[in-house]
Amino acid sequence: MHPGKSFQTIGVLSRPRRSNLAVVVPPLLKWLETRGIQTFYDEETASCLPDVSKGLTRPLVADSSQLLLVLGGDGTMLAAARLASPRGIPILPINMGSLGFLTSFTVEELYPALEDTLGGRYSISERVMIDVELERAGKIVDNQRVLNEAVINKGALARMIGLELAIDAEFVCRYRADGLIVATPTGSTAYSLSAGGPIVHPAVESFTITPICPHTLSDRPVVVRDSSCIEIRLSGSTESVFLTLDGQKGIPLQATDRVRISRAKELLKLIQPPKKSYFEILRNKLKWGEA
Amino acid sequence: MHPGKSFQTIGVLSRPRRSNLAVVVPPLLKWLETRGIQTFYDEETASCLPDVSKGLTRPLVADSSQLLLVLGGDGTMLAAARLASPRGIPILPINMGSLGFLTSFTVEELYPALEDTLGGRYSISERVMIDVELERAGKIVDNQRVLNEAVINKGALARMIGLELAIDAEFVCRYRADGLIVATPTGSTAYSLSAGGPIVHPAVESFTITPICPHTLSDRPVVVRDSSCIEIRLSGSTESVFLTLDGQKGIPLQATDRVRISRAKELLKLIQPPKKSYFEILRNKLKWGEA
Amino acid sequence: MHPGKSFQTIGVLSRPRRSNLAVVVPPLLKWLETRGIQTFYDEETASCLPDVSKGLTRPLVADSSQLLLVLGGDGTMLAAARLASPRGIPILPINMGSLGFLTSFTVEELYPALEDTLGGRYSISERVMIDVELERAGKIVDNQRVLNEAVINKGALARMIGLELAIDAEFVCRYRADGLIVATPTGSTAYSLSAGGPIVHPAVESFTITPICPHTLSDRPVVVRDSSCIEIRLSGSTESVFLTLDGQKGIPLQATDRVRISRAKELLKLIQPPKKSYFEILRNKLKWGEA
Amino acid sequence: MHPGKSFQTIGVLSRPRRSNLAVVVPPLLKWLETRGIQTFYDEETASCLPDVSKGLTRPLVADSSQLLLVLGGDGTMLAAARLASPRGIPILPINMGSLGFLTSFTVEELYPALEDTLGGRYSISERVMIDVELERAGKIVDNQRVLNEAVINKGALARMIGLELAIDAEFVCRYRADGLIVATPTGSTAYSLSAGGPIVHPAVESFTITPICPHTLSDRPVVVRDSSCIEIRLSGSTESVFLTLDGQKGIPLQATDRVRISRAKELLKLIQPPKKSYFEILRNKLKWGEA
Repeated sequence: MHPGKSFQTIGVLSRPRRSNLAVVVPPLLKWLETRGIQTFYDEETASCLPDVSKGLTRPLVADSSQLLLVLGGDGTMLAAARLASPRGIPILPINMGSLGFLTSFTVEELYPALEDTLGGRYSISERVMIDVELERAGKIVDNQRVLNEAVINKGALARMIGLELAIDAEFVCRYRADGLIVATPTGSTAYSLSAGGPIVHPAVESFTITPICPHTLSDRPVVVRDSSCIEIRLSGSTESVFLTLDGQKGIPLQATDRVRISRAKELLKLIQPPKKSYFEILRNKLKWGEA
Repeated sequence: MHPGKSFQTIGVLSRPRRSNLAVVVPPLLKWLETRGIQTFYDEETASCLPDVSKGLTRPLVADSSQLLLVLGGDGTMLAAARLASPRGIPILPINMGSLGFLTSFTVEELYPALEDTLGGRYSISERVMIDVELERAGKIVDNQRVLNEAVINKGALARMIGLELAIDAEFVCRYRADGLIVATPTGSTAYSLSAGGPIVHPAVESFTITPICPHTLSDRPVVVRDSSCIEIRLSGSTESVFLTLDGQKGIPLQATDRVRISRAKELLKLIQPPKKSYFEILRNKLKWGEA
Repeated sequence: MHPGKSFQTIGVLSRPRRSNLAVVVPPLLKWLETRGIQTFYDEETASCLPDVSKGLTRPLVADSSQLLLVLGGDGTMLAAARLASPRGIPILPINMGSLGFLTSFTVEELYPALEDTLGGRYSISERVMIDVELERAGKIVDNQRVLNEAVINKGALARMIGLELAIDAEFVCRYRADGLIVATPTGSTAYSLSAGGPIVHPAVESFTITPICPHTLSDRPVVVRDSSCIEIRLSGSTESVFLTLDGQKGIPLQATDRVRISRAKELLKLIQPPKKSYFEILRNKLKWGEA
Repeated sequence: MHPGKSFQTIGVLSRPRRSNLAVVVPPLLKWLETRGIQTFYDEETASCLPDVSKGLTRPLVADSSQLLLVLGGDGTMLAAARLASPRGIPILPINMGSLGFLTSFTVEELYPALEDTLGGRYSISERVMIDVELERAGKIVDNQRVLNEAVINKGALARMIGLELAIDAEFVCRYRADGLIVATPTGSTAYSLSAGGPIVHPAVESFTITPICPHTLSDRPVVVRDSSCIEIRLSGSTESVFLTLDGQKGIPLQATDRVRISRAKELLKLIQPPKKSYFEILRNKLKWGEA
């Protein structure tokens, strides 16, 4: 996808239970229709319309669209990323919530952003995503794509868990910790940052492996190449361990499970506000330089 | 309890499922009997004996004893502390596991330690404990004593939780984090240390309040006087939040619960190896000065 | 000093090179004179007056006064603390700069604060200070009092230095680091916080020992009782090591020097704004709960 | 340089003042001579020989050699890297000191390593180096190459300094801190790690920017692509600021200086022990998984 391509079909995905959607969505759909754009939308978006029945499942919306217009917060954006990336279609992100660090437009910028996008005046930020594979008893039983991070963590009542990390089939170390985060550069400013990880610019081709509350005080965050294949196994007591994907989906793990993490083949394409830089967003979010 | 007092009745508490108990316990009981000491023991200890039926519940053992001899690891020691402290009886700790930071004797030191203790040649380290009170709908529904820490933390599948901290009825701050630890000095070298808290010497009359993976990066550990009354409430989304006590007991919290933490009236009395200092144990555990 | 005492003589100390002093000082002195208060002032304060010659050295001002009114930033306040504490006189702090964490009044609050103070309506926050003693070749060659911290650190071009820490004559550990900070609770929110130390409430009778960039990753901040005597010696290569006091005074150390740190006999007495709490100031400074 | 190439001329560089050099060097030179290798050596190496006069300056040694055999610790290795990299010649590192994290051979492995190297049985680890350019009053006044890191830091007696960071000519942020480290992946396990930076695998094409004791608590380490041009200027008070290169060379900075950091054109080529992996060395050094 190079700057300049225009779009005939647009899918609209909305954040659930946002009261202002009712104000935003109807004129938006009309605006797109007027310009000859065919639109598809999910059930959340449809819930603001007279004819609720036209809402589609999100995968169907994505299948039919050349661009996903996302009216959402962190959660909706992460879900949209999982749909957009394997289909090679870009996301136009409009922030309707307390969106974290993903570059995005405000609601006020919705129409100018659309004008620019449809006129071919936009740039794209490409983001690496992670494919997470769960092997159980020799079989792949689950396969997920995430934008921010995969986390292996203990249940609420468990004490620390033991984990064994291998990179490209080489043993790296054993952790005793509350859990372990494997984050993309995009995810480096989310959960991994709270756990003590560094901020990693999206252009650095890397994953950050950050232990959560490690027992061994020298267990520091490690940044490795994103061409690495990361494998994590449980070690020692294994009651109540979970694999959590982008903070949204949790899968209970069993003692002999192996979690394998590698770079997804397709990048996520994010349409970008032309004037907001990565570091400007970071400065605002982290209140750098104010105190 | 001042150095010099001797003991006529001793209770023995043992760590469950320790194979070497079968070797240690029978001669130990004989040794005590020979010296005219009356012994009581829990069911774990009894499981190593021909007459299993003589095992008592741990509270009954504690009620009948002037001293608790604990053959255990971290878990057994923490459980023994909860029994010993309100009864004002000291603990003679013998390390049968991967004991953390509590000053303790090795199995090899068992008989010399007993000789010294019975001969009145011992010193005592007094440790502050925490009383944790759970208020629900205006009523105190639970009341627990802990030696290391009280933790309020999120469930495995939950995203971060919101907590509100007040000290002596004054609002301190709101946290968005995986959880919050309130630790005694004894507990400062356990979970709180893994979460980034300082090491606090047992003689500093204080509690350490350490956030777990805080969203706000300036949310640092805070050390307050142990005469403070600490109150924590949930704020915002409240699904899947737990109160965990000494890493052993977990209680699911409800949206309007209040957790109140204050210094327990009675101190825990630990009989100490005469030659091992606090900092020497720390140096060994943390491998200070080796690298 | 208990709340209610009033003052016949007031010393005024001012921050050097503050342009607004010329506006503040003359009416202030007149205001005090009108109320029958005898005033003394330092050379900085005098520089705003027609008769510059009446400025005294700061120790002379302190000797003659029952209260020190300080128009300053962090630096002036730290200097005033060293004068006020051994003389047992309180400080009325007026913030003329980017004052850090010490509770203080704004310039706008100057006259109301004075009215209240002279009327006996004030409360006092007592702060522990540190006495730092430098022993060289068996002799005490320097002796200083500090409010925030004593730091032993490497010169700009030196590589890491070796330090040996003893508490109450017991060896604690050897550090290889850029330096070591010993901070009071007041100082815990200054340099020690930047180096990774905890926030310590002024009521916790303690010193915090925080290594600066320690080579051994398990060298964590340690909080000890303020009745402890802390001794630090150099170990290994000793070129270019300095003792820095409250970030203001630097003393080059020699290979066999010993630095001894203990609690100062007298507390610092700070007159407090009645409505600003410790945690409120902290919240504002650290921007807690905003992000 | 591909595996398999052999060497006719070898330069030997030695760590100053190592007593065991006298034992190692003479038989080593003889061994090389016997195999028809022409050797050149620096003055330190020559100091172990009967004819001291044959020692050359290190740059001359490097000019004449196809391979540098370095008998050294961290310091000698860092100095050798600066000579080897622009000349495109590899280093065979033999550890004579407390070598940090660079993969290297022990003295016991000297002859087997030489046999393998001369026989063409070796592999090479390529390491990115940094070029540091100092601009003063519009002119480049200094230009250095470093392997670990460039540091801009305050003098021993200075309080915190102000720094302004730009990446690829875009303003990133202002720091108030003790200093700022820009480290290569090789340097990520040295000073940057002590200051809180992550461990970065050598294959990640990146620089890590780590503030030292930052005043703003959200100033976290940032990892950026090594194709970035990093520029640092002083801001605010500028007395006593230094540029330190690989912990070895210090240059006092002036108020309007600009320090520019970019990836060196040539990589450093390190001959590697075949059986020691990066993570194995890390595990040993950091004592991972022991506690």
